[in-house]
Amino acid sequence: MEKTRAVTARTSSESTRDIPEATVARLPVYLRALTTLADQGTGTCSSEELAVAAGVNSAKLRKDLSYLGSYGTRGVGYDVDYLRYQIAREIGVTQDWPVVIVGIGNLGQALANYSGFRSRGFRVVALLDADPARHDEVVAGIDVRPFDDLEQIVRDHDVAIGVIATPAVAAQDVADRMVACGITSILNFAPSVLAVPEQVDVRKVDLSIELQILAYHEQRKTQHAADPVEGASA
Amino acid sequence: MEKTRAVTARTSSESTRDIPEATVARLPVYLRALTTLADQGTGTCSSEELAVAAGVNSAKLRKDLSYLGSYGTRGVGYDVDYLRYQIAREIGVTQDWPVVIVGIGNLGQALANYSGFRSRGFRVVALLDADPARHDEVVAGIDVRPFDDLEQIVRDHDVAIGVIATPAVAAQDVADRMVACGITSILNFAPSVLAVPEQVDVRKVDLSIELQILAYHEQRKTQHAADPVEGASA
Repeated sequence: MEKTRAVTARTSSESTRDIPEATVARLPVYLRALTTLADQGTGTCSSEELAVAAGVNSAKLRKDLSYLGSYGTRGVGYDVDYLRYQIAREIGVTQDWPVVIVGIGNLGQALANYSGFRSRGFRVVALLDADPARHDEVVAGIDVRPFDDLEQIVRDHDVAIGVIATPAVAAQDVADRMVACGITSILNFAPSVLAVPEQVDVRKVDLSIELQILAYHEQRKTQHAADPVEGASA
Repeated sequence: MEKTRAVTARTSSESTRDIPEATVARLPVYLRALTTLADQGTGTCSSEELAVAAGVNSAKLRKDLSYLGSYGTRGVGYDVDYLRYQIAREIGVTQDWPVVIVGIGNLGQALANYSGFRSRGFRVVALLDADPARHDEVVAGIDVRPFDDLEQIVRDHDVAIGVIATPAVAAQDVADRMVACGITSILNFAPSVLAVPEQVDVRKVDLSIELQILAYHEQRKTQHAADPVEGASA
């Protein structure tokens, strides 16, 4: 389980501070909002502007950024490019993260083609599938390889993060093999709960969560529309 | 923009209370954790058990559930099935939500096949694609239809929620057409920012966000491993 990945030396103390999990989860959202602002040519932004772009309230945003030692400049706001750099460094996406994707169905192919991975430092080094019929394919410029090559690929590329895009029945076996060859973070798209050792992080993507949040608001719109006073303000 | 969707009558006052957005975003996570507990045959659970299953701290969980009027029973905990019902009703997933998906590439096909939609009340009534070559296909048992059929499908099925799974360049046009025919909630998988009227909710799915959260923790594991004292406790 020894990792030899080089970590950029930090000159400040922030790398040792614990950031609350809810703040960690919002940092990628801020990074995305800042990237959008930068693409629009915005050089500085107020906390209010950034809060609107990220969809949070500005007090929470300022609190979150204070964990990174970022307070902006009074009357000027935040330097967009510098704040992007600070957040990207804090998350670790200024590093190169080799990733393997297991399961090359529609979702696996969509993920292999997803431009948002590469632009955040995630480099798909291999696509693996148990089905021999897939092993001559090339998806998104990457060869599809047998699942049994996992150990060697993880060793050759020092892979720490694995993505599971298999059917639910295969997910636990894939996770076990990933853990056995030293992968310590798993992103699970399969609709199943994985049992892994304590030191392994698993995050599960549920594609319906955002739809449920929309449904909540949609339900309330319908209720408000049924109330002529509140409905009139929409 | 008139909606005639029937809304189940509420007998309590909770439907009119504003729930904080961060709590709204966690309700689907609690629902997923409760469904897992129910599948394992668990009838009641403590707030600590549910908090662990959902990956939040238990004080936050209790606070979140208090917005729903759910406080559990001292010494017993929460009734799993009843709490599932309360949350599902609050989110609105006890209703039937007809949904259209536009863009039938790999991601659109993966979404059409995604079992997690149907089980939460989201019923895909149509798959639309601008490419005539796709219009004879059947994906996940649903006919692929021309994008120009959007207006009629929205009217026929009273669709309020649209899913965009097109390439980025097409997403704004698709959103404009959706809004024009009365869709008021959009789930956007395309890597682009959409401009929509204020009364329309857009949520953007960024498939790399969870990967960035893993990278943050992975980076810290590597740092801890380099520190023999902290590394020894892992």
